Amino acid sequence: MSEKQKKPQKLKARLPRGFVDRTAADIRAVDEMTAKIREVYERYGFDPVETPLFEYTDALGKFLPDSDRPNEGVFSLTDDDDQWMSLRYDLTAPLARHVAENFNEIQLPYRTYRAGYVFRNEKPGPGRFRQFMQFDADTVGAAGVAADAEMCMMMADTMEALGIKRGDYVIRVNNRKVLDGVMEAIGLGGEENAGRRLTVLRAIDKLDKFGPEGVRLLLGEGRKDESGDFTKGAGLGADQIEKVLFFVGIKDYAESAAQLAELVAGTAKGPEGVEELNQIGHLVGSAGYDSGRIKIDPSVVRGLEYYTGPVFEAELQFAVTNEKGDKVVFGSVGGGGRYDGLVSRFMGQPVPATGFSIGVSRLMTALKNLGKLGEDEVVAPVLVTVMDGDTDSMGRYQRFTQALRAAGIRAEMYQGNWKKFGNQLKYADRRNCPIAIIQGGDERALGVVQIKDLIEGKRLAGEIEDNVTWREARVAQVSVSEEDMVQRIREILAHQADDRKRAGRG
Amino acid sequence: MSEKQKKPQKLKARLPRGFVDRTAADIRAVDEMTAKIREVYERYGFDPVETPLFEYTDALGKFLPDSDRPNEGVFSLTDDDDQWMSLRYDLTAPLARHVAENFNEIQLPYRTYRAGYVFRNEKPGPGRFRQFMQFDADTVGAAGVAADAEMCMMMADTMEALGIKRGDYVIRVNNRKVLDGVMEAIGLGGEENAGRRLTVLRAIDKLDKFGPEGVRLLLGEGRKDESGDFTKGAGLGADQIEKVLFFVGIKDYAESAAQLAELVAGTAKGPEGVEELNQIGHLVGSAGYDSGRIKIDPSVVRGLEYYTGPVFEAELQFAVTNEKGDKVVFGSVGGGGRYDGLVSRFMGQPVPATGFSIGVSRLMTALKNLGKLGEDEVVAPVLVTVMDGDTDSMGRYQRFTQALRAAGIRAEMYQGNWKKFGNQLKYADRRNCPIAIIQGGDERALGVVQIKDLIEGKRLAGEIEDNVTWREARVAQVSVSEEDMVQRIREILAHQADDRKRAGRG
Repeated sequence: MSEKQKKPQKLKARLPRGFVDRTAADIRAVDEMTAKIREVYERYGFDPVETPLFEYTDALGKFLPDSDRPNEGVFSLTDDDDQWMSLRYDLTAPLARHVAENFNEIQLPYRTYRAGYVFRNEKPGPGRFRQFMQFDADTVGAAGVAADAEMCMMMADTMEALGIKRGDYVIRVNNRKVLDGVMEAIGLGGEENAGRRLTVLRAIDKLDKFGPEGVRLLLGEGRKDESGDFTKGAGLGADQIEKVLFFVGIKDYAESAAQLAELVAGTAKGPEGVEELNQIGHLVGSAGYDSGRIKIDPSVVRGLEYYTGPVFEAELQFAVTNEKGDKVVFGSVGGGGRYDGLVSRFMGQPVPATGFSIGVSRLMTALKNLGKLGEDEVVAPVLVTVMDGDTDSMGRYQRFTQALRAAGIRAEMYQGNWKKFGNQLKYADRRNCPIAIIQGGDERALGVVQIKDLIEGKRLAGEIEDNVTWREARVAQVSVSEEDMVQRIREILAHQADDRKRAGRG
Repeated sequence: MSEKQKKPQKLKARLPRGFVDRTAADIRAVDEMTAKIREVYERYGFDPVETPLFEYTDALGKFLPDSDRPNEGVFSLTDDDDQWMSLRYDLTAPLARHVAENFNEIQLPYRTYRAGYVFRNEKPGPGRFRQFMQFDADTVGAAGVAADAEMCMMMADTMEALGIKRGDYVIRVNNRKVLDGVMEAIGLGGEENAGRRLTVLRAIDKLDKFGPEGVRLLLGEGRKDESGDFTKGAGLGADQIEKVLFFVGIKDYAESAAQLAELVAGTAKGPEGVEELNQIGHLVGSAGYDSGRIKIDPSVVRGLEYYTGPVFEAELQFAVTNEKGDKVVFGSVGGGGRYDGLVSRFMGQPVPATGFSIGVSRLMTALKNLGKLGEDEVVAPVLVTVMDGDTDSMGRYQRFTQALRAAGIRAEMYQGNWKKFGNQLKYADRRNCPIAIIQGGDERALGVVQIKDLIEGKRLAGEIEDNVTWREARVAQVSVSEEDMVQRIREILAHQADDRKRAGRG
């Protein structure tokens, strides 16, 4: 290796994998979306509360799905005092800590919401990041299923507030107690079967992906995928498998409720779970939410291990084309459930709680697919160009710019190298500026400015065939006195806004 | 130690030091404030862009003030591939990385803003947290001081948009080149004096705290504080000290500009710095910003080491009472400056840039002091109480609640243990609910609900002297048919809003 090659490399600008920068369009879309979600949550009587991004590792607990090693999936470091701290992996565990820490000051039921970033120290993939935003609502201190039913209705209302029409979404509801009852009924109850139960749950969770036949293999001996990789199954017998498949295959809950009750009869919590599902069904029905909007569906599992009762999932049912070009149902954009044990970990008393979490990026992707975002189009600034760079002229351009801003008009003075005037118009074009202001020595002597309508200019450039006609027309450019500048620009912007509205873009 | 005492402790709910939960009032206040800031930045032609919370440690660089050890002040951990990652300590270093990484796609000048959390691994103190929010605006690719002048004007406009009146704020401007020139003029130029220069800068930065006499000691032999602790000084001679004190003591820049130019004449960058200050003064003056709003003030230092030219500070000048009970000027709520070297660390070419950062929590504290936040008061939800817990009644209460929400009225059904009715009214009281809805068996039979005006009720409770009169009056409670419920509640809420407005709280 030559000396030259050994030279230390220049500092490389790159992000750690699984992290991304957010564009203006994405930020505005998320802001628009979260504002609508917040409005629904507020209407339901929830108030904001937020926790910091760090927690003590033990306070967070280990509830992430698919993490067999301790601390897997979490970003952790030691503090100066040698205690382990972690970045939150969801917004529920920190809320549990918050409630326990402030239990004497908090008025129960405690109804709160929060949006914030969470972190997963996992292998990133397409659409799978190590930092992403969740938007949660939780009711702490409410033991009854009315609180769970409310979560489901709030999520249905949220979907509609975002412009997702009825039929395009469904809130699916299941109950961990029923799941546990089915496990017990097939002989997988008790602490000693925890490992096998987890394998069964993971198999059920693959229903959307592999269909009933795939799940049947995963519940039995195992399944070989297309690449030849073999996943060991749960090793259930034929009778056990049939019961599980009946359960997760229930399509019409009302029709199958009696058979389900029979299946879990005599188990520790199964009958209670079925009764809770029935009550949720009744409550949402009374309030006018039919099974097209909130549907009891025993195939819902939810990965997080802290759920103890009802679990929910918000699913979008319209078709999209995936990376492979296949038409698929868009799928889950959030979920949640009852987690009665999470706050009590810190307390000497039981503290029931239930909540719902929306995956913000995923929902934003869905709304973009539906064309439901970006309605509040932001117009780019008016550009005050710089013809002369002497201090007096610069002060004058600056004054024009401030006058526009003071009138509430987005405006900027060109801040690059003013000597290349062509670059200024190129900048205006690439930024999509609606108007450019020009004042050279001649105009200055007359006390006027040139106002260039860049939108109209682009349109005319398409219509007018040759340069001669173009120069003769000049309709897209007017000369006005400095005093009239703000008013005239206001008129042109209003005119452009009308045009956009007529074109159906405003 | 007995066996009992050795038992492992219950999991303790607590936050790592230097981190705090945010209340609903704080979250709403910050939202209200950042919305106003965003509006000003947008009007100035800036667009949002955001970076993630993690960066590679080398990409962030080491620019924090007062950190002598490498990586001091930063939260860092190693990724799976053994590369060091850190949580961002400001929003400027990540922006520099973002621009360098996307340089070919970015249109210069690049004008962006962003709000977000930053992290400092420091000893926390009163009002000093390890996670806090900054709100930044930056122009990258603009070499001229017009971009710096614009930052100053935008900050002045931001202060006014937040309701801080003229005279209560000032944007102070200095220039690192002038500072460097003064250093060179007193014989502290060159790489070999970097350490002493830093000591001098830190001494200057203490001007607000210790006054000129304190700084004189810190520039000379050193200073003993009240507790007897001795801080070693920069060891300057009397003549050197006078020059520094003249410089930082300049009150009226226009008056002292000539003398300052003389002091730095012949130094490498001093004259250029003085010229830049003069130009900024001219530009902001032309646009109508007098020295009461944007003031050239050579005592501004700014701690971060990446600044290369103009530096700014937004200072609030009204008096507040500090923890010790002393009246003090509120002080800095943000600052910034030109950092021409930060993007070029990644590039083979120079990329000039300038920006401004607002300390969100500190500014919020200031606005609270001024009574400028909380104008958009959020009314607590109407409480639908639960008298009977059977499924049918619950469904009915749920339907009332949904009807109110569908009408855009904040409402909730009581989710705690319904059997203790007194607790429901206590809950309504502590939450400050404006109205409670009650329906027992008698009302249900008649198809009516009781509407309790809790605000009027509280007022009457203060006026009416004995329980008999109270029970006879009952004006704060009306019985209406289920069909009229929503309309009647709408009227009561409107009435309450009028009352608040009259009382000057709405």
